[in-house]
Amino acid sequence: MTETRIIAEPGLPLVEVTREFDAPPHLLFRAHVEPDLLVRWLGTDGLVMTVDHLDARHGGTWRYSHRDAGGNDYGFHGVYHGTPSPDHITQTFEFEGMPGHVSLETITFEERAGKTVLRLLAVFQSVEDRDGKLASGMESGIHESIRRLDALVATLVDNLAAVR
Amino acid sequence: MTETRIIAEPGLPLVEVTREFDAPPHLLFRAHVEPDLLVRWLGTDGLVMTVDHLDARHGGTWRYSHRDAGGNDYGFHGVYHGTPSPDHITQTFEFEGMPGHVSLETITFEERAGKTVLRLLAVFQSVEDRDGKLASGMESGIHESIRRLDALVATLVDNLAAVR
Repeated sequence: MTETRIIAEPGLPLVEVTREFDAPPHLLFRAHVEPDLLVRWLGTDGLVMTVDHLDARHGGTWRYSHRDAGGNDYGFHGVYHGTPSPDHITQTFEFEGMPGHVSLETITFEERAGKTVLRLLAVFQSVEDRDGKLASGMESGIHESIRRLDALVATLVDNLAAVR
Repeated sequence: MTETRIIAEPGLPLVEVTREFDAPPHLLFRAHVEPDLLVRWLGTDGLVMTVDHLDARHGGTWRYSHRDAGGNDYGFHGVYHGTPSPDHITQTFEFEGMPGHVSLETITFEERAGKTVLRLLAVFQSVEDRDGKLASGMESGIHESIRRLDALVATLVDNLAAVR
């Protein structure tokens, strides 16, 4: 499996994303909690991402924004539930353009024969919230982010191999 | 409306609770974030509640436990998303007896003609999680907690009236 699977069943406030990466779980995890790595894949090629803060511990908060070519900023923030680890990251998520609409995300990194199956589960406060997110281009954004993440971890794996 | 409405539609990972109280929003809010008040209503008459910590701010964490007559402890913990206010409290919620199953709760306090409509929305990571919670007696626990909360805020309202 190398394609990205996005499951969004009609009438359920859930989105589930699954993807296999040719890299170990700890590299995928680092790409999620190290700001220098995160800005290299989350988002799309036309956006410049800035991480204001990211405190990877239980109760730690994070905030980042994406700036488009027109200079518009799109901010996001949330809180970690439990200390993030290569086993899982659980966090709240809020787009500041839609304040008051919060989702809960769980990301797991499962090692499988030297590769990693990444699974993201997002639960929304209503089916309308979930559908609105899908209508705003969530799926194409996920596909592009994951393509960039795949390229990033391939570089990290090559770097690891080079220093051995 | 004075009865408690609990909506849990089949096949949806959501539970919504609505109840009107004869008290202003700020008293209902205090009853949720002041440990001395919280222990007087959350739970059932047979349980002794202890709040380990409750830090009512964005990224603040909370933990409490209920002890039954047999000395068994039932722990719960979570994190606040956004600073809790009389408008709303948004928090994660995890029962330590079922680690890894996290829900997201939003509690709002709407002032209506001198009374307060409390609404709690809980979203779960799956329909199975929601159904398991219902099967474990969630509904009767909610009814008893709300009955106790109603009695508590009536006392607080009387105390306020007495000092005027």
